[in-house]
Amino acid sequence: MNTHMSVGLVQHACTEDRKHNLQASVSGICEAHRQGAELVLLPELHCHPYFCRFEDATMFELSESIPGPTTEQLSRVAAELGVVIVASIFERRARGLYHNTAVVLERNGEITGTYRKMHIPDDPGYYEKFYFAPGDQGFRPIPTSAGTLGVLVCWDQWFPEAARLMALAGADLLLYPSAIGWDRNDTEQERARQCDAWITIQRAHAIANSLPLAVCNRWGLEQSARENDAGIEFWGSSFIAGPQGEVLFQAPCAEDAVHSVTLDLARSAALRHQWPYLRDRRVDAYQGLLSRYLD
Amino acid sequence: MNTHMSVGLVQHACTEDRKHNLQASVSGICEAHRQGAELVLLPELHCHPYFCRFEDATMFELSESIPGPTTEQLSRVAAELGVVIVASIFERRARGLYHNTAVVLERNGEITGTYRKMHIPDDPGYYEKFYFAPGDQGFRPIPTSAGTLGVLVCWDQWFPEAARLMALAGADLLLYPSAIGWDRNDTEQERARQCDAWITIQRAHAIANSLPLAVCNRWGLEQSARENDAGIEFWGSSFIAGPQGEVLFQAPCAEDAVHSVTLDLARSAALRHQWPYLRDRRVDAYQGLLSRYLD
Repeated sequence: MNTHMSVGLVQHACTEDRKHNLQASVSGICEAHRQGAELVLLPELHCHPYFCRFEDATMFELSESIPGPTTEQLSRVAAELGVVIVASIFERRARGLYHNTAVVLERNGEITGTYRKMHIPDDPGYYEKFYFAPGDQGFRPIPTSAGTLGVLVCWDQWFPEAARLMALAGADLLLYPSAIGWDRNDTEQERARQCDAWITIQRAHAIANSLPLAVCNRWGLEQSARENDAGIEFWGSSFIAGPQGEVLFQAPCAEDAVHSVTLDLARSAALRHQWPYLRDRRVDAYQGLLSRYLD
Repeated sequence: MNTHMSVGLVQHACTEDRKHNLQASVSGICEAHRQGAELVLLPELHCHPYFCRFEDATMFELSESIPGPTTEQLSRVAAELGVVIVASIFERRARGLYHNTAVVLERNGEITGTYRKMHIPDDPGYYEKFYFAPGDQGFRPIPTSAGTLGVLVCWDQWFPEAARLMALAGADLLLYPSAIGWDRNDTEQERARQCDAWITIQRAHAIANSLPLAVCNRWGLEQSARENDAGIEFWGSSFIAGPQGEVLFQAPCAEDAVHSVTLDLARSAALRHQWPYLRDRRVDAYQGLLSRYLD
């Protein structure tokens, strides 16, 4: 059995022009495929500017069904190239019910699974609770011809619980489409700490579960004409890490990047034999994890 | 309210001579106190060589009760200096029942709490399941005059669940006495990956819980006269991180180190307001964390 699998990521900026953004995603997929990628990861909500910067009901018009226009176009690309694609859609499930949803397209073009973002942020500039209902599918990895994918989305990346649940359910690989950036009012030191924390905690999910991991973030300043809008400077820095958290590739913070890395999925098994965390979890003593707080 | 607190760590090597080792711990505590430390963390099992390298029943003679000779001596030091000490003891609870136990001594010398290591490793060179019964006190932080301490021990550091439970139960600070090192047969690259993974996953516990963290490891080669014993080269590298996982101090890998850092415990609250992970945990969807595996 060949345990080697090449994963690619496509980091790009997102403009107001949906067609332009989707073209950037598709061009990147083609380039990643030329590099040998069997699986390509796109950034979170890659067809749109990050509209959650404000609460604005007109933005619901950006939503679409699954299947819908974006998945149909990407399905054709998946089938033409024979690659698995992990896309990210502003999903309209019903009028008044929307999700932030990752879609996995098989290399024959079929939709093979979806993951609805479970942890929804809400803080200044990231008003996602206004737009997205929390996912109701739980943490279910998606089996594909390129491995069983533990797909999570952005804010999920700060929760070790999410990565662990994907690992316990058999994920071979953790994948995080993201849209995260700097508040331009923050100091350089604070910016460095935030981006480093973001990389570190995701590397730690790889380590804790002995799984490789890929993260794809958008880059670029998104700023509106609204008064006092400092905008968000999305920090790119998409990366791929091995199952010891070792960084195998990291993109720059402010430019397009397409890169593929060949992973050996057999390393996870070897590591789990060396340091067998799954054997030693104290499941008899973890009840408190189901509480909001232990007071 | 003064939210500043100075934490010190004492990294030393451990020989066959218990008295010598305890003297190294005490000297380090005095030095940390001179530097202003109100709380001092010692390495795991700091009175002994790492006897778990082999399964050897004669080693049970190294165990002691709590209170016992080591806690009595350290209690005197705590009271003389007025510092809180986190020590690590091979606890004899009964004949045939031993634990790997951290003890917290208040600045008046009283034993204010213990933590019995919950996750017990067992792999070549770390035969702890032979020596230690798994802790049965759960993950309870220990309130002290220097903050509420989330004391965990070594192997616990690979489990995000442990850090999370301490945070949910009100810990102000995470503390990890450790004894971890390199197999001398490993390549330089593998050694670098292991030590970096160890640092990274612990920094991630700080990040995930917006808590500062200190880790104290022993250093030095421990090797016996047994045939084919390559020994373990304990890698030191003790460190203190802030609540964004930022490294505030890191000791060298192969020498004694005593260092104190002043932490501002109020930064945790500010961070939790900025990125409120505790608000968004999906406690309704974490049931699987109580399973060994989801098959």
